[in-house]
Amino acid sequence: MAGLEHDPGGVVALARDLIRCPSVTPDDGCGINALAAVLEGIGFSVTLLPFGEGAARTPNLYARLGTGHPHLCFAGHTDVVPVGDAPWAHDPFGGDIHDGILFGRGACDMKGGIAAFVAAVRLYLQKTPAPRGSISLLITGDEEGPATNGTVRVLEWMQANKQIPDFCLVGEPTNPGEMGEVIKIGRRGSLNACITVHGTQGHVAYPHRADNPVHRLLALLGELTAAPLDAGSAWFEPSSLQVTSLDVGNTATNVIPARAQGRLNIRFNDLHTGADLSGWLRTVVARHAPGAEVAIAISGESFLTQPDAPVEALRQAVRAVTGHVPRLDTGGGTSDARFISRYCPVAEFGLVGASMHKVDEHVALADLTQLTAIYCGFLEKVMG
Amino acid sequence: MAGLEHDPGGVVALARDLIRCPSVTPDDGCGINALAAVLEGIGFSVTLLPFGEGAARTPNLYARLGTGHPHLCFAGHTDVVPVGDAPWAHDPFGGDIHDGILFGRGACDMKGGIAAFVAAVRLYLQKTPAPRGSISLLITGDEEGPATNGTVRVLEWMQANKQIPDFCLVGEPTNPGEMGEVIKIGRRGSLNACITVHGTQGHVAYPHRADNPVHRLLALLGELTAAPLDAGSAWFEPSSLQVTSLDVGNTATNVIPARAQGRLNIRFNDLHTGADLSGWLRTVVARHAPGAEVAIAISGESFLTQPDAPVEALRQAVRAVTGHVPRLDTGGGTSDARFISRYCPVAEFGLVGASMHKVDEHVALADLTQLTAIYCGFLEKVMG
Repeated sequence: MAGLEHDPGGVVALARDLIRCPSVTPDDGCGINALAAVLEGIGFSVTLLPFGEGAARTPNLYARLGTGHPHLCFAGHTDVVPVGDAPWAHDPFGGDIHDGILFGRGACDMKGGIAAFVAAVRLYLQKTPAPRGSISLLITGDEEGPATNGTVRVLEWMQANKQIPDFCLVGEPTNPGEMGEVIKIGRRGSLNACITVHGTQGHVAYPHRADNPVHRLLALLGELTAAPLDAGSAWFEPSSLQVTSLDVGNTATNVIPARAQGRLNIRFNDLHTGADLSGWLRTVVARHAPGAEVAIAISGESFLTQPDAPVEALRQAVRAVTGHVPRLDTGGGTSDARFISRYCPVAEFGLVGASMHKVDEHVALADLTQLTAIYCGFLEKVMG
Repeated sequence: MAGLEHDPGGVVALARDLIRCPSVTPDDGCGINALAAVLEGIGFSVTLLPFGEGAARTPNLYARLGTGHPHLCFAGHTDVVPVGDAPWAHDPFGGDIHDGILFGRGACDMKGGIAAFVAAVRLYLQKTPAPRGSISLLITGDEEGPATNGTVRVLEWMQANKQIPDFCLVGEPTNPGEMGEVIKIGRRGSLNACITVHGTQGHVAYPHRADNPVHRLLALLGELTAAPLDAGSAWFEPSSLQVTSLDVGNTATNVIPARAQGRLNIRFNDLHTGADLSGWLRTVVARHAPGAEVAIAISGESFLTQPDAPVEALRQAVRAVTGHVPRLDTGGGTSDARFISRYCPVAEFGLVGASMHKVDEHVALADLTQLTAIYCGFLEKVMG
């Protein structure tokens, strides 16, 4: 078939096989099981690690080849986001190849990345049949969902079983436009707050007999948004606070309402912690609205992997294959790297993400081949 | 029956008869028709003036006794607000009298006031069978509702038919706690605005690619509420701006929304006009959110009746009966006096309003008698 005549390490064939598993979150295991069979064929020792009960049951996989050090782990997910309502030109789970492009849900996010890593291991083992270190994979079926019974639980299991690696590479798509642009070495933290201000309802004609919670909410949000949180740090963009919703729902024009609610999200860099920001929020809220409720959820702290030897090795591997010197970046949303960073250094490099989560998600076969070569080069530099 | 042995001018009997008409807005005419019959019996020339079509059809009444000047008009409404969901101890439309108190919907707001005026005319005519001036009544069945086919339309008819009086007295309850406390000689204006800010939706992790309409709304509302509109004027409290609702309705914590809406009400004194405030609102909004929509509705301009001879006559009449020197006031909500003020000087004096719109609305028989005496004294002073 077109595109499979030259398929180093079998990356295209494996990416297509994985796409043909309709593993929308929570992955029912078809993606995980297909991958497990392939890894066992190469010689990996595979452990299936389903966590959670009932509807929350999440398939996960940990696989290791060898027992020595350095121990390099590749992390990713076989689950994909839904197809969506808009029509696709290609079957989302068909694995069509047209003009050097592989189409399908998960093509770049991130079944293509998993396929490239497996293909890279195959190529590496052809050159180095008895590596001194070890290689592992941490794969979840719940990255696009609540992420509670996936990577977090597998890491707990890995720690309990002395399987924490020396370095972890996450294969999420990191390149905005073409291969070789960006390696992520950290991520901002993320905090959500919901602030509920209670006042005293009354007639607008008699404001002195009421206590308008809307004005208290406006004042506290005004203070929270008055100045930037910081100007950025060595490796991070400035932190950002965005008010995402305001909700009163009062339709009577002559009534001062009894309650007003605001929601906000903070993406914060390494100049802050979730705890510091929570304290600041509560202090500002209390000054303007003493009895207000503040519900805070920290979905991840910021983290930074220093650009030491492993990151430099990855950078050189990218440069050798693509000719580009990738930018070391910490921008964008969150990924499972936030969990891994609590255990070991972690960086992220993968495919071009332009079509991720969109209709007709796709990846260029040339990009799959390049990523395979990059991952193989990285293994050679780190493992020796 | 208890309470009717001494009933000067028949005020209690008439108030009870009117309460027994269940004339919830829009009054179906039972209150208006009952009153029309009474006025014709005294010698008034009564014109029924229904305006509006279908469900909006509103019964109104204009009645005049004599044709000369001074022409004094009494204005009010026979319609009442609904009974409400909470149980009453007394039949809302039964007219029960217990321990010197008359119970029923409309007892103080304002069937009692209408009854007092009719009783006052009866007493005045007993003393002055051939008055030099003339007396009229402007009564609507739509004061507690939209107020579009009531007093506004009757005034247009009165102007077209050369019936505009020299002075108008509105009989709404003006006394907070006891008879004789307050005469209203003006009202603040009222303006409602709905501000809709449009932005560009996006991911909270990439605020520079979005345009958060919530932040624009916060900034413009912050400026609008930063300082008092004024410090009050000779006869008015300070103007007041109250933000009554904020509405975004975004439940996704990682999304910057596309739209944010705020609603506000301004109660303004004679230092402002609706047009000036509208211009100020639009200027501030445009500075922070150039493309925003601003929908403004001015439900009434502020007005002030100078405390000249007629107001002074009313004040003396109140003092003579109650022993109190009433305060001249412009506070509180709106009334139909806002419409009348466009045609002639208008003041307001009526019963004690503490129970208006509440369960077991009531009026003391002694207050009805006092109000009758006050209105009669006012007629004597103004008409001679």
